[in-house]
Amino acid sequence: MTSRRDRAIVVSALKHAAPYIRLYKGKVFIIKAGGEVFADPARTNALVEQVGILHQVGIRVVLIHGGGPQSTELASALGLDTTFVEGRRVTDSDSLNVAAMVLNGQINTRILAACRDLEIPAVGISGVDAGLIRAHKRPPVERDGEEAVDYGFVGDIDSVEADILRKQLDNGLMPVVSPLSCDESGTLLNINADTVAAAIAAELNAEKLILATGAPGILEDIEDPGSLISYIDRTHLKALREAGSLADGMLPKAAAIEAAIANGVQRVHVISYKYPDSILLEIFTNEGTGTLVVDDIDALTPEEQGEAS
Amino acid sequence: MTSRRDRAIVVSALKHAAPYIRLYKGKVFIIKAGGEVFADPARTNALVEQVGILHQVGIRVVLIHGGGPQSTELASALGLDTTFVEGRRVTDSDSLNVAAMVLNGQINTRILAACRDLEIPAVGISGVDAGLIRAHKRPPVERDGEEAVDYGFVGDIDSVEADILRKQLDNGLMPVVSPLSCDESGTLLNINADTVAAAIAAELNAEKLILATGAPGILEDIEDPGSLISYIDRTHLKALREAGSLADGMLPKAAAIEAAIANGVQRVHVISYKYPDSILLEIFTNEGTGTLVVDDIDALTPEEQGEAS
Amino acid sequence: MTSRRDRAIVVSALKHAAPYIRLYKGKVFIIKAGGEVFADPARTNALVEQVGILHQVGIRVVLIHGGGPQSTELASALGLDTTFVEGRRVTDSDSLNVAAMVLNGQINTRILAACRDLEIPAVGISGVDAGLIRAHKRPPVERDGEEAVDYGFVGDIDSVEADILRKQLDNGLMPVVSPLSCDESGTLLNINADTVAAAIAAELNAEKLILATGAPGILEDIEDPGSLISYIDRTHLKALREAGSLADGMLPKAAAIEAAIANGVQRVHVISYKYPDSILLEIFTNEGTGTLVVDDIDALTPEEQGEAS
Amino acid sequence: MTSRRDRAIVVSALKHAAPYIRLYKGKVFIIKAGGEVFADPARTNALVEQVGILHQVGIRVVLIHGGGPQSTELASALGLDTTFVEGRRVTDSDSLNVAAMVLNGQINTRILAACRDLEIPAVGISGVDAGLIRAHKRPPVERDGEEAVDYGFVGDIDSVEADILRKQLDNGLMPVVSPLSCDESGTLLNINADTVAAAIAAELNAEKLILATGAPGILEDIEDPGSLISYIDRTHLKALREAGSLADGMLPKAAAIEAAIANGVQRVHVISYKYPDSILLEIFTNEGTGTLVVDDIDALTPEEQGEAS
Amino acid sequence: MTSRRDRAIVVSALKHAAPYIRLYKGKVFIIKAGGEVFADPARTNALVEQVGILHQVGIRVVLIHGGGPQSTELASALGLDTTFVEGRRVTDSDSLNVAAMVLNGQINTRILAACRDLEIPAVGISGVDAGLIRAHKRPPVERDGEEAVDYGFVGDIDSVEADILRKQLDNGLMPVVSPLSCDESGTLLNINADTVAAAIAAELNAEKLILATGAPGILEDIEDPGSLISYIDRTHLKALREAGSLADGMLPKAAAIEAAIANGVQRVHVISYKYPDSILLEIFTNEGTGTLVVDDIDALTPEEQGEAS
Amino acid sequence: MTSRRDRAIVVSALKHAAPYIRLYKGKVFIIKAGGEVFADPARTNALVEQVGILHQVGIRVVLIHGGGPQSTELASALGLDTTFVEGRRVTDSDSLNVAAMVLNGQINTRILAACRDLEIPAVGISGVDAGLIRAHKRPPVERDGEEAVDYGFVGDIDSVEADILRKQLDNGLMPVVSPLSCDESGTLLNINADTVAAAIAAELNAEKLILATGAPGILEDIEDPGSLISYIDRTHLKALREAGSLADGMLPKAAAIEAAIANGVQRVHVISYKYPDSILLEIFTNEGTGTLVVDDIDALTPEEQGEAS
Repeated sequence: MTSRRDRAIVVSALKHAAPYIRLYKGKVFIIKAGGEVFADPARTNALVEQVGILHQVGIRVVLIHGGGPQSTELASALGLDTTFVEGRRVTDSDSLNVAAMVLNGQINTRILAACRDLEIPAVGISGVDAGLIRAHKRPPVERDGEEAVDYGFVGDIDSVEADILRKQLDNGLMPVVSPLSCDESGTLLNINADTVAAAIAAELNAEKLILATGAPGILEDIEDPGSLISYIDRTHLKALREAGSLADGMLPKAAAIEAAIANGVQRVHVISYKYPDSILLEIFTNEGTGTLVVDDIDALTPEEQGEAS
Repeated sequence: MTSRRDRAIVVSALKHAAPYIRLYKGKVFIIKAGGEVFADPARTNALVEQVGILHQVGIRVVLIHGGGPQSTELASALGLDTTFVEGRRVTDSDSLNVAAMVLNGQINTRILAACRDLEIPAVGISGVDAGLIRAHKRPPVERDGEEAVDYGFVGDIDSVEADILRKQLDNGLMPVVSPLSCDESGTLLNINADTVAAAIAAELNAEKLILATGAPGILEDIEDPGSLISYIDRTHLKALREAGSLADGMLPKAAAIEAAIANGVQRVHVISYKYPDSILLEIFTNEGTGTLVVDDIDALTPEEQGEAS
Repeated sequence: MTSRRDRAIVVSALKHAAPYIRLYKGKVFIIKAGGEVFADPARTNALVEQVGILHQVGIRVVLIHGGGPQSTELASALGLDTTFVEGRRVTDSDSLNVAAMVLNGQINTRILAACRDLEIPAVGISGVDAGLIRAHKRPPVERDGEEAVDYGFVGDIDSVEADILRKQLDNGLMPVVSPLSCDESGTLLNINADTVAAAIAAELNAEKLILATGAPGILEDIEDPGSLISYIDRTHLKALREAGSLADGMLPKAAAIEAAIANGVQRVHVISYKYPDSILLEIFTNEGTGTLVVDDIDALTPEEQGEAS
Repeated sequence: MTSRRDRAIVVSALKHAAPYIRLYKGKVFIIKAGGEVFADPARTNALVEQVGILHQVGIRVVLIHGGGPQSTELASALGLDTTFVEGRRVTDSDSLNVAAMVLNGQINTRILAACRDLEIPAVGISGVDAGLIRAHKRPPVERDGEEAVDYGFVGDIDSVEADILRKQLDNGLMPVVSPLSCDESGTLLNINADTVAAAIAAELNAEKLILATGAPGILEDIEDPGSLISYIDRTHLKALREAGSLADGMLPKAAAIEAAIANGVQRVHVISYKYPDSILLEIFTNEGTGTLVVDDIDALTPEEQGEAS
Repeated sequence: MTSRRDRAIVVSALKHAAPYIRLYKGKVFIIKAGGEVFADPARTNALVEQVGILHQVGIRVVLIHGGGPQSTELASALGLDTTFVEGRRVTDSDSLNVAAMVLNGQINTRILAACRDLEIPAVGISGVDAGLIRAHKRPPVERDGEEAVDYGFVGDIDSVEADILRKQLDNGLMPVVSPLSCDESGTLLNINADTVAAAIAAELNAEKLILATGAPGILEDIEDPGSLISYIDRTHLKALREAGSLADGMLPKAAAIEAAIANGVQRVHVISYKYPDSILLEIFTNEGTGTLVVDDIDALTPEEQGEAS
Repeated sequence: MTSRRDRAIVVSALKHAAPYIRLYKGKVFIIKAGGEVFADPARTNALVEQVGILHQVGIRVVLIHGGGPQSTELASALGLDTTFVEGRRVTDSDSLNVAAMVLNGQINTRILAACRDLEIPAVGISGVDAGLIRAHKRPPVERDGEEAVDYGFVGDIDSVEADILRKQLDNGLMPVVSPLSCDESGTLLNINADTVAAAIAAELNAEKLILATGAPGILEDIEDPGSLISYIDRTHLKALREAGSLADGMLPKAAAIEAAIANGVQRVHVISYKYPDSILLEIFTNEGTGTLVVDDIDALTPEEQGEAS
């Protein structure tokens, strides 16, 4: 940007962004992105750059990552078999070891390295650190007339120790959170990253929970990419979920979103990480690119409703 | 900005600005603008909007204003005569009363009102508050073989109490400073606003002192508006000043600039308040619009030297 | 004071004052004085000296000033006409400019200068600074069968940001408050100084609100200066006001007093600034010189009731 | 004080005292009084009342007491013999037990009780608490051609832990210090209270060390009560001491005074506790009643020199 | 401990103690020991050493001492008569003086000296300091048809100022508390040390109140030392007390214990100071040596119930 | 431990440990253990338990781990080739990925999980987090007459950001540090864990740096396990190293030790992790089990010299 025209644009854009910065300064944003984002260095950098700008302008950002594809890849490279019961994956101790290496080692480290490059002061933390996430192993699932199924080292969250995150934010650091957790005796447990993000968002009274997904948002009709829902309230999302209208991957997300909103998170955004700069666009312009979920649709500002037009 | 193209521009501009925000976050910028800026509501708003954006993105901004034209105007409306000795104005007690009303009352209040409108949390303060500026009346100037000339209630600064400003900045407030000062017995004193700005900049170890003037910057040849100097060091500025190459209004400014740099201020920018968005352009783009004064020209970054090209 | 007898008196007086100092140390006192006090340098100094002693011994003092006479005088000097509708003054934009210059410039500055002379660390602040006073323009007053009357830029208080004052007090500074205020879009608004003092007193849970007036206190009979009421409760004050027994200038004061007490201020004192040392006498001796207003007269201590004897 | 005249006197005295309060607010004053003051409840109250007023107006006061007469009295009541070697008392373990009971128990407790009555928030502390005073037993004194004399459990100060006192002062508490001390193995040691006061004054950078004694001050001629020295510097005091002009009881005091001044205490006052209100008179009027000792007499203010006239 | 076996024991014991340290770190323990413990230097050291270890490992310890035997002894040495009315001792002013010297002087000082020797940073404080204990003189006890009996300067506690203790604990200091108290006019008052300990324990929300007594604990049958009660709840203790099963000395202790538990203290331990290391054994092993009193016996952990086996 | 004898032992051991706890409370200990310790869960727990006890008693512990064997194992499981140049391993980007997964993922996570089990509040951190370690890639090593050898992504430390560790310690957390680092552009770099431990120890002014190794300590003669050196100063260690007397694995350790001591670390201990409880024995008994390295052997206490006997 060097021409006189370009320079005027920078200034004009700054003025445009100023009211948003004022509005969100000091507020907590939880941003969650799945492992597929971090499988690609360019996508990693694109996401970290956006998140870094939010941090830069004074938003208290917590970034949470997944690591599914990488876990599958490493397990395969190590020749580990994946056990399935009733079509669902069982997390055995080898899988856990893989998850620890991928989540806490590979992906978290890469995100921190990208932050270093962009001069974002970030620290890694997982549910295993101090008491960040207190969880317990999910008990075997009972089935009528059949043996209960034990899906292995899968956890359910008992509590989140928000204070550890608050201290990092107060110190001007951006926490990068791996969802790997454990119980009080130190047994590692796998927990869905969307679930972790929703629990942390609730505990920190987040202004926004932003889920960056492969889909453009929530679709009314799984088959029709054009059926993107611009905004929806919790009740209708639940209805949609129970009516079976949501795609497979969206099902646990929908449950997490509903939980976050039920626990006080003001706004949940589902956006596509494939859409360039989707996070910045969602935050710094009136028209977002994905789906906005709120508790009560009547509480939306006219500008937010404009997102749908 | 609502078109897809416009939205992309906002995001692109934010990315462009991010490294500057990172660079300047938490640094102190002293911005001084003369009374002529505040004679016009549109110019006042334009300046306050720019300054507010700096405050918004985390720069510690102190805004200092003058009030010359308004004082002249009020004195005239009140039918006060201005006394001149040897061609220089004498500040009598009526003039001081006018200065207090204009500086601490009219202009400072208007700036604070504009800040309120833009949701910038600002507080007014003058050199009379607590011990912000400790000054003494300038003694009469001796002249060979003639009676000494007493220019009246004109002050020289003894010290600046930076702590009062630091506490306001620490509390997230933007100080708006009127240069009116007094001595320890409470006698009001007139002090040049550029001098006050330079003294405060030195005491706060400011990263930048920005003087918004009616001229485009410092000119090599007073007569030639095209002879704008892009950057200059302290020694050369002094030489220019002593060679009589500076316009009248620039003379006290040059002395203040030299003092600021001698006392540790890194960079002093002289820019035109008439050039739209000149402050933002100066800070958020490589090519500024005015003159950059530094202690040692060799310490300029290549980008800063680019400002001259 | 140099004779042995005089020295003994100093010590005896200090002992006398000690229990009062212990009683009031760290408590908030709001002291309001009208513009007429500050029209006279001797009166200004006498008031500031008394207020400074309160500050010195550890009372958290906030001084609030008016500026009516000075505004009238400046308007007249500037040849401005004052518009009246139904006998009440209309505040047009010229009047506002005058009010800003007089209140925030002339009077506030003079008080700060007097404080500097007495080594009282004071800072000026008005309702326009940060969010000290959030107000809105009073809507036009409806009249039966006639056009509504718009009294111009007159404000009603929505809220007071006590934290800004508390921080100054915590830093050992004495706030000197100008009642000039504005709405959230930065439009300046005129608000009665007694009303501002009462609102600040309530917000800071003041121990005492002291109104220094031209009258000796509240009179039972407007015509009879000897009918000074020594103490009265809120209910009786209201009755008096509604019975039309109060002089014109006392009417808005009475409403402000009632509001302050209704909002938790313990004691409101109405005293004369003409009576020498009336503030110190009111605080450091059992017998005050004016009127004490409380919520419930039965809660008065015997010493306070003694004030009436 | 109830007459109009009396009330005017209170106010006039407050104004007189205000500059002194401003001058001394936040400064440290060490006040030491011998056991004979506390042998009499009326004298105890008179001293505590004066000290409490200093505390009240914001001076950081530390009160240090002795206990000689009471120790002698208790030893006698318990039928203990006092051993003398070469005419000097030997502190054996019984004497130490008596000192502990008298200093830390009887006198310190009585002073605290008097403080409670006057609502002065005071805490007792002795050289034995935490590390307030670190001392060692004075080694036996060598004598030419004779056996060394061991004066028993008498201590010399190694260091004072000023932080313990500072924290109490910061918390708004007035420390009441007993001079009883001990070595690092917990052996109790007797130390002269003047010596303790001087050491604490030096460590706290006291503005003033005030020694309340039975004499009117330091006398030029022991025999002549009229030979009171109004002010003197350290060098001359030392000369006086070495010339044998000082009374017995004044000898250790003089050494302590010289040490305090050598270690940075600005002013040491020797006054009589018998003179009514001598502490307040010394502090709040220009003409003290006793002797002022300074490092350099030329640094005295004219007012202080007036004390001698 | 120098052999290889001894060294292994140290390490093994540290591991054993670690979970207890973790459990109790930062918790408040109130430990009270009667005057008879401090009559013997060896016992004093043994107790202080144990208490010091608790302090060392991070428990917030407050030590409270009595002083009965020493008071009796000093009164006797001074030839004071003790007056009895109805078989109960009357505290006259001589007795109070003795109590002050013994409690605040002799015993408190000795404990602090022992702490110095063991490098435990301790500070002495009594109910007379600042507002630690606010008490009033117990009114004469009415008796049917007879003159009321005035037991003299005996106090009942109105309130405890826990903040003074908390600040000392926050500063890493161990408070050593003498139970001597006073009323608001500074009149000294005698209060039972167990009562003071219970009141302080309640005010500090103590985890444990430990009473070190001459008995092995609470006995079911006064005559039978083998009838030690291992644990008991408040209701049963009260029943025991009302049934007259408790020994004389245990009666006031039982009332204090009941009060402490009623006011929220979790556990009260009654142990013997004669049993070597009884405090450490009680805290760092599952099997205590005395009696544990709780509010509800069902809330005991299995380990604690094991204490009885 | 349930017998009476056992209980006495616990108490006796606590008393033995108390002076050491007092001595080391609040001091910084850096403990480094190689990857081989963490290859075995029992050894991991044994080490974490010891380290946890240090943390429990108030020592500020930082635990640093290596991960060599695990990296080799994972590289092998993934079928990665290790490149050697001149007999030294080259760290290529695959190796780095493996190092990230092993160090930051597998080992760090397992240690944190073990801490959770033992209720030690620990947080993981690596040189990549925020600015903990600022390093640069080591430039290719020049060789006479041959091509320079590039050992790949191996780093040299520029600086350590001790503040990040201090904040965690201040918050009561135990940092568990992975040595993986990166340069300012986010390129991961391998750095020897001993080197990292020494740099952190120097930056935190550690009281002790403890290296837990497979050897019993430093041997005078590589071949003779009986030639253990009990204590040695820096000069002699350097001589030994330069004389080639040190085993291969000990060479980089020796350089790190010398650097730590040169930079102010008081004592470096080299002990065997195979010796049960070697850390606790080294700290809580006079006779350590390995080698103590100091700057000046004459500064050793007699007890420390006893370690050699």
